[in-house]
This record gives sequence, C-alpha cells and structure tokens, in this order.
Amino acid sequence: MIESTSQVRVRYAETDKMGVVYHSNYFIWFEAGRVLLLDECDCPYRELEEQGYMLPVLECSAKFYRPARFDDNITIVTTIVERPLLRIRITYKVLRGEELLAEGATLHAFVSTDGQPIKPPADFVDKMRKLF
Amino acid sequence: MIESTSQVRVRYAETDKMGVVYHSNYFIWFEAGRVLLLDECDCPYRELEEQGYMLPVLECSAKFYRPARFDDNITIVTTIVERPLLRIRITYKVLRGEELLAEGATLHAFVSTDGQPIKPPADFVDKMRKLF
Amino acid sequence: MIESTSQVRVRYAETDKMGVVYHSNYFIWFEAGRVLLLDECDCPYRELEEQGYMLPVLECSAKFYRPARFDDNITIVTTIVERPLLRIRITYKVLRGEELLAEGATLHAFVSTDGQPIKPPADFVDKMRKLF
Amino acid sequence: MIESTSQVRVRYAETDKMGVVYHSNYFIWFEAGRVLLLDECDCPYRELEEQGYMLPVLECSAKFYRPARFDDNITIVTTIVERPLLRIRITYKVLRGEELLAEGATLHAFVSTDGQPIKPPADFVDKMRKLF
Repeated sequence: MIESTSQVRVRYAETDKMGVVYHSNYFIWFEAGRVLLLDECDCPYRELEEQGYMLPVLECSAKFYRPARFDDNITIVTTIVERPLLRIRITYKVLRGEELLAEGATLHAFVSTDGQPIKPPADFVDKMRKLF
Repeated sequence: MIESTSQVRVRYAETDKMGVVYHSNYFIWFEAGRVLLLDECDCPYRELEEQGYMLPVLECSAKFYRPARFDDNITIVTTIVERPLLRIRITYKVLRGEELLAEGATLHAFVSTDGQPIKPPADFVDKMRKLF
Repeated sequence: MIESTSQVRVRYAETDKMGVVYHSNYFIWFEAGRVLLLDECDCPYRELEEQGYMLPVLECSAKFYRPARFDDNITIVTTIVERPLLRIRITYKVLRGEELLAEGATLHAFVSTDGQPIKPPADFVDKMRKLF
Repeated sequence: MIESTSQVRVRYAETDKMGVVYHSNYFIWFEAGRVLLLDECDCPYRELEEQGYMLPVLECSAKFYRPARFDDNITIVTTIVERPLLRIRITYKVLRGEELLAEGATLHAFVSTDGQPIKPPADFVDKMRKLF
C-alpha cells in the first residue's frame, strides 16, 4: 500500500451559494493528492507526460459526509492499495482535522499521447514493484 | 421514469492539456441536466431553494468512455428511474450525436438551509407521485 | 463593427458563498461570446486551431455593476469595434434582460502552436476586411 | 505599502488545450494571494464575513506575458499600495522563480451581507492606519 498526505486550503472560488464547497471541486483536490503521491513514488506525473504517457480518469466517484467550507485547511489522504498493473485504482479521504468529510476513488489507465491504451512505462512498473 | 434532454457546447475553459474535457466538468454538466429536468417537472430548483429546501449531492460517480472535446455539441440525457422518496437518484448519459461519451449518477437528499435533513416539500411529493 | 449576442444560463457551480456568480466566471462567458462571434464571422475558433493558429488572451479586464445569480438567463453582447490587424480587441456587455451587469474586454494575438507570434491567417484577414 | 507572498502549484484542472493555464484561473490565484495578505494584516477574510462584511470584486484586470504550465511552482506577490479608505485596490504579480508571468489588479469595496455598500469595520480601519 502506498499512501500520501497533501494539504489544500479551501478557495472562495470553490464554494457555491449553499456556502460550502461545490462537489465537483473535490475531484480537483483528488488530482492534487494523486500528483503528490506520484511525486513521492519518484514518478512525477509531469515527467510521465513528457515521456509520452498520460493517465486519464476512466471512472471516478465520491461520497460526501460533511461539507468543506471556505478557508478550511483540508487534508487529502491518497492511497494505492494494490500494485497497479494495467489499471491504477486510487482512493482518497478528505479530512478537516480528524473529521472525515468525504471519500472517493478514481480509476486510471495509461494511454499514449494519441489516446491509445498502452502498457505502463518500464520504469513505473519497476518502481511500483519495489513499493508493493 | 422521468427523462430530460439538455444541450451544452463545450467551452475552452473546460478542456485541459490533454486536449479534452477535464473529468470534473462532467459533474457540472450533470447539474445543468438536473436543473432542466426539475424545470420540466415544474419544480424549478431555484424555487425549491427560495422555499428553504436545498438538494446537495451526497454521492456522485461517472465513467468515461470517449473524451469530449472543445466546441463539441453535447447532449445530456438525465433520468430519474424510481419515484424519489427521501433520496433522489439521478442518472446521466453524455452523448455527442449518437456516440455515448460518459455515464454518471448522483444521489441527493433534501436539507434545510441550515443543513439539516428534511422531508421533501409536499408540492414536490405530489408532483413526483403524478409523474411516476 | 461586428457584434454577436449569445446566451448563458447561470450554473450553480458558477456561484460562490456570497450567493452570486464568482467574478472569474465572467471571463468564461466572454469566451463563449467570442467563440460565437467568430462562428458568425465564418472563422470558427476550432478551425483556426486546426489550421495551427491560437488566439491566447494577452490582457483581460472586467467591471462588475450588479451580481448575476443562479439560474439567471444572461445575454452576452460581444463586439469587435475596429478591424483587427495583428491584435484583436474584443469588448463584452453582460446583461440580464435590459439590466447591465458587467462589462469587459480582452486583447488577443495570433500565435502558432509552439507559442510564437504569427500573422493572422490570410482567410481571416480577408473576412475581417469585408466585415469592416 | 503592504505586501504578501503566497505559493500555488499549478493544477492539471487549471490548464486548457493550449497546454497552459487558462487565463481566468489567475484571478483565483489572486484571491489566494488576497486572502493570505488579509491574514497577515490580522484581518482574516473569513472573520470579516462572519462579522457581516463582504469584499466583492468591483473591477479586475490582468496582463499575461508568459504562460504558466502544469506543475509549475508559482509565486503570487500581492500588494496594497495605498491605505484603503472606502475602496481597496490590490495588485498582483505572478512569478515562476524570477520570471514574471502576469500582473493584475482588483478593486473591492465593503458591502453588507444584503449587498449594500457600507463603511469598513472600525477594527479594519485601525489596523490599516497602523500599517500605512
């Protein structure tokens, strides 16, 4: 299992007229968590794209328990539970302090820059093998 | 079953550096579909909020099959399959012409303006009873 | 002078906790107005990009007089006052019915896909010459 | 003069199909800079709103010199040049390292929660008097 913890501070732009964070913005926080997790695995997403690999989202989901609010300091715990083979499943917990606000998941697969499914880069496979 | 069809034209702002629509924006299109469906049920969401009812998203999910691109004319087919009682489950299909690009679902419950769960307004219950 | 009128319906996602549209979203509406104006000039922006031309924003500004709100039907009047040479200046009025909510402007120049400034395509120059 | 320096890391969601940050997102970074500047003045914006004061954007503008890209570490230098009286003018510089990417400005005035112009809170006036 790989786990990474990142922080975001809620932006006013992320709130809506209910006074809370609009739900689709959680997926952008998930992205921030995912990018940091890949950094910490020594596979920065920026470099993956520079090498011609992209990791689009095939599926995503979230459950919302309590609303996040403007200026909250939010923690995102990002986890890869199983060693990724062709597909990468990532899960997320969104917390304000100890309080669990939301949970989510995304599913990804490597595609080439022209959008065709491809195998993960060898370097990525190696690093994941060592981590799991 | 209630079904509503709405149209969006993809905005440049909705694309990302992969050249396709960033995944979280589909949830904003789902919102557009939901708002139109409620209009067509004669329960405009704006009026629900004016009467003190809000319908936050409790859960949401999406699967992405093919990317939407800048300037595409997108159709969102929004459906409520079962008569909503305390919770409302809504499903979405995102199409470009005949081509299915994505599918999704959201789950909602009525809450009061102070965020407490409440029963749906009587008028809403009546209208839903007639529609199902 | 070229003028184009487009419509947007305010999305919940575009509001913030003040209960009104967050200011940066007006620039996305300006984009919608600009894309429609280029369509009406028979120079669709999608085609310009397919031919290797991009029109990034060099400058932008807006003044906000009255807030737009969720579900409002908004009219954007997009205008090119002077025949564009190397730079294109576009102005925008945002209205709710007769009521002027905001005004803005953007300045653009053609760049190639690698980001270098280039002359506008001959076809664009011709069409603009006929329109002014 | 009051000056504050904040950091953002460019999110994938903030890019567009040109491969660079979509222009309207700079205004969201300006907000992040502004919120931190108010924190550092010991007038957190969250508390201003809790006391019934809001600071909507009356005007905003930006000039873009070089594009910001995904994963860039961006510095926002936020400045209030003159002691604010009824209106607050804030300027922004967006840098990647030493490189100036963009500049901007926003103009704000205090309004009450029902949207009426009001005088700044006495505490805010005092703190600004001491800082200038």
